[in-house]
Amino acid sequence: MISDTPKKRSYFAASSNFADGSDSPRDFLDRCISEIEARETDVKAFEYLNLDAARSEADAATERWRNGNQLSPIDGMPVGVKDVMETADMPTGQGSALFQGIETGRDCAAVVAMREAGAIMVGKTVTTEFAATQPGKTHNPWDLERTPGGSSSGSAAAVGCGMLAGATGSQVIGSIIRPSGYCGAFGYKPSVGGINRGGSFDGFSQSCTGIIAASLAECWSMTREITSRTGGDAGYVGVTGPMEIPTAKKPEVVAMLYTAGWANATDDAKAEWQRSRDTLVAAGVEVVDRESDGKVKAVEEAIAGAMDLSMNINAWEGRFPLDTYNRNMDASKLSDSAHNRLQQALGMTQEKFAELLAERDRVRGIYAGLDGHIDVCITLSAPGAAPKGLDWTGDPLFTVPTSLVGMPTVTLPVLSDGGLPLGLQVIGHTNQDAQLFAYAGGILNLF
Amino acid sequence: MISDTPKKRSYFAASSNFADGSDSPRDFLDRCISEIEARETDVKAFEYLNLDAARSEADAATERWRNGNQLSPIDGMPVGVKDVMETADMPTGQGSALFQGIETGRDCAAVVAMREAGAIMVGKTVTTEFAATQPGKTHNPWDLERTPGGSSSGSAAAVGCGMLAGATGSQVIGSIIRPSGYCGAFGYKPSVGGINRGGSFDGFSQSCTGIIAASLAECWSMTREITSRTGGDAGYVGVTGPMEIPTAKKPEVVAMLYTAGWANATDDAKAEWQRSRDTLVAAGVEVVDRESDGKVKAVEEAIAGAMDLSMNINAWEGRFPLDTYNRNMDASKLSDSAHNRLQQALGMTQEKFAELLAERDRVRGIYAGLDGHIDVCITLSAPGAAPKGLDWTGDPLFTVPTSLVGMPTVTLPVLSDGGLPLGLQVIGHTNQDAQLFAYAGGILNLF
Repeated sequence: MISDTPKKRSYFAASSNFADGSDSPRDFLDRCISEIEARETDVKAFEYLNLDAARSEADAATERWRNGNQLSPIDGMPVGVKDVMETADMPTGQGSALFQGIETGRDCAAVVAMREAGAIMVGKTVTTEFAATQPGKTHNPWDLERTPGGSSSGSAAAVGCGMLAGATGSQVIGSIIRPSGYCGAFGYKPSVGGINRGGSFDGFSQSCTGIIAASLAECWSMTREITSRTGGDAGYVGVTGPMEIPTAKKPEVVAMLYTAGWANATDDAKAEWQRSRDTLVAAGVEVVDRESDGKVKAVEEAIAGAMDLSMNINAWEGRFPLDTYNRNMDASKLSDSAHNRLQQALGMTQEKFAELLAERDRVRGIYAGLDGHIDVCITLSAPGAAPKGLDWTGDPLFTVPTSLVGMPTVTLPVLSDGGLPLGLQVIGHTNQDAQLFAYAGGILNLF
Repeated sequence: MISDTPKKRSYFAASSNFADGSDSPRDFLDRCISEIEARETDVKAFEYLNLDAARSEADAATERWRNGNQLSPIDGMPVGVKDVMETADMPTGQGSALFQGIETGRDCAAVVAMREAGAIMVGKTVTTEFAATQPGKTHNPWDLERTPGGSSSGSAAAVGCGMLAGATGSQVIGSIIRPSGYCGAFGYKPSVGGINRGGSFDGFSQSCTGIIAASLAECWSMTREITSRTGGDAGYVGVTGPMEIPTAKKPEVVAMLYTAGWANATDDAKAEWQRSRDTLVAAGVEVVDRESDGKVKAVEEAIAGAMDLSMNINAWEGRFPLDTYNRNMDASKLSDSAHNRLQQALGMTQEKFAELLAERDRVRGIYAGLDGHIDVCITLSAPGAAPKGLDWTGDPLFTVPTSLVGMPTVTLPVLSDGGLPLGLQVIGHTNQDAQLFAYAGGILNLF
């Protein structure tokens, strides 16, 4: 039951017509709302919708664009907010029965900044429980029998089928890149610390707020409209660079990463990996991999254990708040997986955690050895199309290395598996996010 | 109107009598409660008291100690929680009219850990608004006309006069060391990241959760009972070392720091500084300073601008959540100083913040040059005794350098100014908190 092919809806593709009135933010929003009305019953991307306020804000944005007074390129852009991030005008449920309907009364830092730039918070998008593993209610808009991926499930599904032009996500393992790939959206996880997480219930050391959008340019502009106002996490400058997406630039040297995910890759996915390689080579890009390059081989070896290492780090760092939820709230409303993570944490020691951090530092050091040696790495966003069923958000083995190492990554919706979307992941160097976008644009131009 | 000399109340001094029943956690708590009943009307250290629950928990602890089944050395210890830290059974008001009486339903990470170790959360202690500059209602127990210092005002006042054996605090400029010094308590700010801040409304990059207690040993034990369970901030191991306070050790080389605070020091304080120096020299410790040692001179020059630098970093990092409070809540309930900090932040740029972080890194690098060169630095906790009046929490120029540089520091209540308490600050090297406690114990033995 593969549906009509979902279409992304780019705000930037429309906004050039806002000045002369042949299109408008209000018309754009109405098209988003039509898509929501047509498909939300099936897709279930949202926890909460604020359409009346959105229409009113879109009217105001329409006036600004007509007068040439738009606040930013994302003024009037319909955006979704992952439901682990606080919003002053909508509840923040964290995907948990413990927090369903809870109103905190304030906006997270990213939302404050986006509102100042004129963007419209259309609704809260479904997340897995606490942005971890327990799935939410969302279906993949390409095939309702399949997962949208997680944890930024609703954001990816809504952007993938044009209900929104962009949305926030967060990733500690694979929660932006995986669902973006499964739903045919562009996704961006910044360098660690790259986007201010203030007001996001998401405190892991390798977690990031990131962006899912209908185009690479919108991923970049949303990011910079946020970071230019509220920077990165405390102690981090946050993503810097031009306010508009850097000029596309073909990389000179690219490393193809297999990662531990290769063992699970489908035949189609492997063929797409090879097609990606061939495309780069045909364009005159030097392509290296673990066979041809010792530094890449060292990286592949270093990231082979990224999943276990990340899960253990997250378990220890996630002891709070799970321990107080278990003790002080209705513990029966926690999922089995949440209980299991807490038990894992309670069995760990601070000394063990010290070892885990030291190992992560070691892996980061090895990856840093690629800086100056290769321009970007590329790999798949997942081992194949979104799996059938809604009880699992899919295999994260292709995405966890960037989370562990803290490097920035984007996924481009240019591959496919059995007619369903698959992403091409382009991975940059830490704190060189602008350069990553330049190269990702250059690669996108080849597909 | 200097009151009867306040007395600190050490739990560790009492607990050796718990096994034979000649004393008990319940008796100890009752003595704390008597002090609260006698002085709280004047001192106003608490936002909230949970005495019935505390008595019941003390009875349970009494049983455990009698049976030799105590959960830890702090089992049954009466502790206060700074009111920026979440507690499941008490409101968390953040010292702000915006949040007065708000119940979040969960315990912060440090409180979870202390409860697991058996400690008793007696109440929430008064903080300045958002742990910043706007004073709370607390008076100094040594002289009710004087400030207790801030921002951990209630914690320091309650410990200083024996209402509690220990309390949590937090410091981003001087909020643990300054009030501890003013109230005659021991205070400890760990290395940056040293104690898990999960559930504390306190997101600045140079802020730390720390401990105020009746003895150095209690500061250490409370810390390790927390960090052994919940570690440091996300991405930080947290304070490590033995579970009991490291054996006291006389330092071989100590650097006396003047800091920018020297210009404001009272005559008594300067005399105490000299007495401290003389005491160390008489004990055979090599004492160096900016006159005799080039590396110390470099540190003094580097930290001279610590206050401005810290205030600017905090302003940018504090834009969230002040911006959403100002926009989405009743802005008239924010203090003028909060409004001023927000205006300062709104006038800053991400590029400016990048420069500030680079300057902080530079200062940290220069201080790191003392590692291996001197054992500890010492200086005053403040330019003198607590100033008169409750509208200002006192001069932070002696405390801000350790906050900026992220190094661990303790204050020992061994100095005085006009008959009122003044602290001797002992400053260690980053992530060598156990070593700092050993040397601080060695110095304490000389006074």
